[in-house]
Amino acid sequence: MVATDIDMHIDTPDPTDPVFALHRGGKMQVAATVPLRDADDLSLSYTPGVARVCEAIHADPEVAHEYTWVSNTVAVVTDGTAVLGLGDIGPAASMPVMEGKAVLFKQFGGVDAIPIALDTTDVDEIVDTVARLAPSFGGINLEDISSPRCFEIERRLIERLDIPVFHDDQHGTAVVTLAALINAARLTDRELSELKVVISGAGAAGVAICRILRSAGVVKISVTDRSGVVHAGRDDLNEVKRWLAEDTKHWAKPGTIDDALDGADVFIGVSGGTIDEASVARMAPDAIIFAMANPNPEVHPEIAQRYARVVATGRSDFPNQINNVLVFPGIFRGALQVRATVISEGMKLAAAQAIADLVGDDLSESYVIPSPFDARVSTAVAKAVTDTARREGVARRPY
Amino acid sequence: MVATDIDMHIDTPDPTDPVFALHRGGKMQVAATVPLRDADDLSLSYTPGVARVCEAIHADPEVAHEYTWVSNTVAVVTDGTAVLGLGDIGPAASMPVMEGKAVLFKQFGGVDAIPIALDTTDVDEIVDTVARLAPSFGGINLEDISSPRCFEIERRLIERLDIPVFHDDQHGTAVVTLAALINAARLTDRELSELKVVISGAGAAGVAICRILRSAGVVKISVTDRSGVVHAGRDDLNEVKRWLAEDTKHWAKPGTIDDALDGADVFIGVSGGTIDEASVARMAPDAIIFAMANPNPEVHPEIAQRYARVVATGRSDFPNQINNVLVFPGIFRGALQVRATVISEGMKLAAAQAIADLVGDDLSESYVIPSPFDARVSTAVAKAVTDTARREGVARRPY
Repeated sequence: MVATDIDMHIDTPDPTDPVFALHRGGKMQVAATVPLRDADDLSLSYTPGVARVCEAIHADPEVAHEYTWVSNTVAVVTDGTAVLGLGDIGPAASMPVMEGKAVLFKQFGGVDAIPIALDTTDVDEIVDTVARLAPSFGGINLEDISSPRCFEIERRLIERLDIPVFHDDQHGTAVVTLAALINAARLTDRELSELKVVISGAGAAGVAICRILRSAGVVKISVTDRSGVVHAGRDDLNEVKRWLAEDTKHWAKPGTIDDALDGADVFIGVSGGTIDEASVARMAPDAIIFAMANPNPEVHPEIAQRYARVVATGRSDFPNQINNVLVFPGIFRGALQVRATVISEGMKLAAAQAIADLVGDDLSESYVIPSPFDARVSTAVAKAVTDTARREGVARRPY
Repeated sequence: MVATDIDMHIDTPDPTDPVFALHRGGKMQVAATVPLRDADDLSLSYTPGVARVCEAIHADPEVAHEYTWVSNTVAVVTDGTAVLGLGDIGPAASMPVMEGKAVLFKQFGGVDAIPIALDTTDVDEIVDTVARLAPSFGGINLEDISSPRCFEIERRLIERLDIPVFHDDQHGTAVVTLAALINAARLTDRELSELKVVISGAGAAGVAICRILRSAGVVKISVTDRSGVVHAGRDDLNEVKRWLAEDTKHWAKPGTIDDALDGADVFIGVSGGTIDEASVARMAPDAIIFAMANPNPEVHPEIAQRYARVVATGRSDFPNQINNVLVFPGIFRGALQVRATVISEGMKLAAAQAIADLVGDDLSESYVIPSPFDARVSTAVAKAVTDTARREGVARRPY
């Protein structure tokens, strides 16, 4: 969710391109945290000493969380079917993104993350495979798995595992969007419960944003896909879209996205489509526009500025960058710290509020969300998560 | 394969124990090799820049090997069924050993290794799971999987994958044993083809040692298990032991291990049993004894010394420590360097010879094998592997 334009047509490595120069050999490595200088070191870290730690874990599995790296390690799992805006490019081609994600986990959250790109797109096989990997990791971050398969995969893994499972394309995006909306509503002196919200996109991000806004008290939501507003009268809805239709039925009306935007307070774009300037112009006064498609926002921010009070994008070269790097490092840092069994709706809401609160008195039209490089963020998110986990009774480590 | 005695009865962590102090928080971490200071860095390592690398790999999968960390990364995979001498302690309790192995991979071979402990012991499930992980790794090191399941798992994964798959408990042990035997034979002025060898143990290590000795030209081999010498007349043999019986039929005779040792030149112990001093005394002149069980060798080295010319163990507190850390880091370093499709019998033989050759003119009764901390070893092994891979036509990277 950053700035410069992408040339999608380059497909052989250009050694003079700084991106390829930087990627040579990959972006991460493993490092020992123990010395291995001589036979004495080896007898502590490996045989025979290591056997004592194995025995202690065998006697009490809880010991593993203090004496292995599992407690601080997350698998970043993909099947390569929905990578960035590139689509289904397969597991091998997804690896640079998964490595990038792992590097962000470490840099922003202090979490050790391992990229796992799977050579299967079958839902049952993905669920079984990840479940079998679980003893090696403290949490599972699902990434770039296409919709609607991502919903079933996440649901089944959450049911099956007692470690946190989090699909970042859904919930990271939803949490950071809610954080920005909390502040945009505060700036414009409105309650979330009175906002009329249009979400463009009914994939992973759109569905999760709809869910978290409902949890946060937003009641007037329309979600649109390529066929217009999602509503129960349509006969082309999959299971998730039928849920969307049900959950938004009190406000969503059949029609196009342009119909929906007429008088709306908030536009949230996670679709990659384009919105007519005329439709933007018909939104309510003090409109809020989050045009998050990358690299090309659904409404260019300079156009959006003409009609809206608050404009945010996914890009770093405009104010209010909505970037889920504000979310996932702190969410997992907190969840791992207290060994939470799940990442609950309450934890996501608390994370959004914590991010929003960091803006404080500096709140303005061009500052509704902290910078991705604001060093306070992951600590604040982690604290919100650990506090909530303890309150909800899902923290297995009580300190 | 190191020194001090293990107290197997400790099963709660003792915070004053240096082993537990060292293991707190685990023994390894992930580290970024790229900077992430600002939005410019982010736009190179992550979006939008990373998309160019993804596109290049999508167009040509070979690009992944130059521009991701996959090319230098090995999965250390176990199901926790045969961990050290502890047996079937399960995946969680195996993690300290897998982390230790990963740390050794890095320290001795410069290879990034990830511990993967699987929550299944089903052969089909293990094979399927590892095969699905393959796009994320440059090689697979199987570890501490019980016999005879380990043979089928390795065979099927080798058939299915085009990256190296190597079961270290078999082949690492076999290679380092052969290296020591090459030098012990040279010291005592005998050819491998004339040696009479008794292998105590018909599990992963015993089977692999038998195989590599046969490949190296040893013809007179008896392998023993708890029921005595493995031979075709027994009705309790599994598939692998039937192979052993067939492959050793020209020399192996029905009987006990004590019968087999009568007049034998070489004893190789990978069983953990105990050999009577009287049987050791009946071995041939200039006997060679590799008593590799840990922490208690099959024959105590001080007793073995009374009757044998060359004595080796798995322990660091006696001369001639036979430790497969001499093997696996260099084997994978070489295999990854040339992107070998397999780790062939030829590569293993060349690795053994390279290790043996490092001893050179310093060869003596107490120095038939280099120290685990001899810095020349992994480079020499890697060179033997890359040279052999090129000669055999299994090197996909020609430089």
